[in-house]
Amino acid sequence: MEQITNHTHIASLFDQGLKLENGQILPGIQVAYETYGRLNDAGDNAILVCHALTGDAHAAGYTRLDADICQKIPFYRSKKETDTGWWDGLIGPGKTMDTNRYFIISSNILGSCYGTTGPVQVIKGFTGANFPAISIRDMVKVQKALLEQLEVSQLVTVIGGSLGGMQALEWALMFPEIVCSIIPIATAAAHTPWAISYSHLMRQAIYMDPVFNDGHYDVQPENGLSLARQIGMLSYRTSNSFEKRFGRNKQFINGKNVFEAESYLTYQGEKLVNRFDANCLLTLLNAMDEHDVGHGRGGVQKALSSIQCPALCLGIDSDLLYPAQEQREISSAIPGAHYREISSIYGHDAFLIEFKQLNHFIHEFLDCLAINKFHISETCDLENEI
Amino acid sequence: MEQITNHTHIASLFDQGLKLENGQILPGIQVAYETYGRLNDAGDNAILVCHALTGDAHAAGYTRLDADICQKIPFYRSKKETDTGWWDGLIGPGKTMDTNRYFIISSNILGSCYGTTGPVQVIKGFTGANFPAISIRDMVKVQKALLEQLEVSQLVTVIGGSLGGMQALEWALMFPEIVCSIIPIATAAAHTPWAISYSHLMRQAIYMDPVFNDGHYDVQPENGLSLARQIGMLSYRTSNSFEKRFGRNKQFINGKNVFEAESYLTYQGEKLVNRFDANCLLTLLNAMDEHDVGHGRGGVQKALSSIQCPALCLGIDSDLLYPAQEQREISSAIPGAHYREISSIYGHDAFLIEFKQLNHFIHEFLDCLAINKFHISETCDLENEI
Repeated sequence: MEQITNHTHIASLFDQGLKLENGQILPGIQVAYETYGRLNDAGDNAILVCHALTGDAHAAGYTRLDADICQKIPFYRSKKETDTGWWDGLIGPGKTMDTNRYFIISSNILGSCYGTTGPVQVIKGFTGANFPAISIRDMVKVQKALLEQLEVSQLVTVIGGSLGGMQALEWALMFPEIVCSIIPIATAAAHTPWAISYSHLMRQAIYMDPVFNDGHYDVQPENGLSLARQIGMLSYRTSNSFEKRFGRNKQFINGKNVFEAESYLTYQGEKLVNRFDANCLLTLLNAMDEHDVGHGRGGVQKALSSIQCPALCLGIDSDLLYPAQEQREISSAIPGAHYREISSIYGHDAFLIEFKQLNHFIHEFLDCLAINKFHISETCDLENEI
Repeated sequence: MEQITNHTHIASLFDQGLKLENGQILPGIQVAYETYGRLNDAGDNAILVCHALTGDAHAAGYTRLDADICQKIPFYRSKKETDTGWWDGLIGPGKTMDTNRYFIISSNILGSCYGTTGPVQVIKGFTGANFPAISIRDMVKVQKALLEQLEVSQLVTVIGGSLGGMQALEWALMFPEIVCSIIPIATAAAHTPWAISYSHLMRQAIYMDPVFNDGHYDVQPENGLSLARQIGMLSYRTSNSFEKRFGRNKQFINGKNVFEAESYLTYQGEKLVNRFDANCLLTLLNAMDEHDVGHGRGGVQKALSSIQCPALCLGIDSDLLYPAQEQREISSAIPGAHYREISSIYGHDAFLIEFKQLNHFIHEFLDCLAINKFHISETCDLENEI
């Protein structure tokens, strides 16, 4: 099938300013987003796709890199036109999230650096260093305003992995009246001390780089940002995947013999430096650490048990950051939830890699919802329930 | 029972210099060591205890902190006289490693900073920054010279966890004529790319600290050393142990609300800064990364299969750094090996925590060896073999 080149659009929202959960007001919000497929007249065939920590709105198809976009979203310059979106394996004509059937929306989250308002943009009263603390709920509020502008009346599902899954959970709690179902993958209902610890290490790495200068930098604190990414990588991958890929092989680089595992990590660090901003990373890590669906709702169990729509909770058997057990617990607490587990050697990152299994489980779930014609409040009885 | 206060001694070895595995010569070597119990006339009731990465010779009893010792081993100043040794739960009169029966030797390893020759001592021709690369085999060679000076003729066992276990494996291969048995715990036969990756992150953290200055520092690069330790902690512990201990609790510290998990990591980092040296840490991490019992011996399998003495291989079910599966593989490759598994929520650090299980398994093994009166080349048939 032919691959589509997708265009990232920029929407302007909240002319009167956005009141954040912490009480601060952010002036007019800009949101970068892509859509795939066509919204039907009732506006009820939409799916919202939520990206993870360093992701962007470009979830499917080839990347459009015209001058206009690269000027509006400078970090897109690190992309190639042959790059397909991060979930291209799931979204497209005839694919699991079938663009012949659904209208798919993917938007860059608040606080990120791919075209949506965040620390990289100079906003009246804010610099990168003093960008306010935002929450997952703030991100969802911005997405909701975008959907209203696009005249979406109902979401067939809200799907996302990791930080994307946190948004999916919040969607079901904040806007149950338009959410038919959610698919939270390898995520947290409340960030665990283990995940917080990884955020903490990543923060310390950035703070230690003298270039960072308390957030007042002109160029990226490359060493700090790179080390932060490398620390993250060890929470996203596994011992077995490194053993299989690198063994104890060495490479001769810059006059030194280094282990391939080391040069791989260094490469991953350098890649992020070219495509992400340190203050944005800090802003999003803080939002994740503060994430707690139970906050103000009587605790995690009570919040999850109040979710009325069907949910497909996907865990990854080798995930070190958001372990499968955590996903089972989320699933157990949501009345209409089904649990499925992805088997992988890749760990947390499997939600960006194991397309065959993702397609299988998500397809099964969407088919089940289709039987009920995606009506709000319908249950979904998957066969072979685990 | 009364607790003994033990004295750390310093031995001088290799008057003619020590030829390292890499070909460089280190002038006269100094070794800090402690002994517990009494060597018998035949010199054959000795046990060698090998410490891990940031350990020292003080394995059992209270710490002696007289002026003489604190002058010779400056990092001992960070200790308290009420501190017992790191394996005091295993070593002492009537304990598993019974000092009424065995003569236990614990020595600080080559390259460390607790009294044995390493980067912190100014040696003719070397500074901390250009201290030569050393290997686990070099460490063992130094231990062997110490045992000769102490007139030990036979080792009932060589025991150690982590880096200590690497030494135990090398002992069985380098000096089979005096080693009755080995007890390698939560260790590697060849450092895996996963473990190397953690070393890599720890190195990068130290390199990034401007105070480090390529190893030419006057005061410790505190931020880098602290972050390195904090990175290490996440490989030594587990998600479950953090969940149980910290949850999402916060503490008010320095005018900020921080998660308890964060303040715990910060505290662990600060503690290491007061008791360890950055160049030493780098030297030891490099030795671990290069560790490969198969090097020059036809590969790991061939090397392990040539070990003739009985071995008790101990794994920890939650170990993220040296997984239980890796220990099972080591055990499978050694002809006379028995495998036992410690069940713990603590992960790798369980070898310093789970004394009840350690005592049980080690006691069972030493009893079995005792039946054969600790003769070299005797097998050990543990009942209930897994």
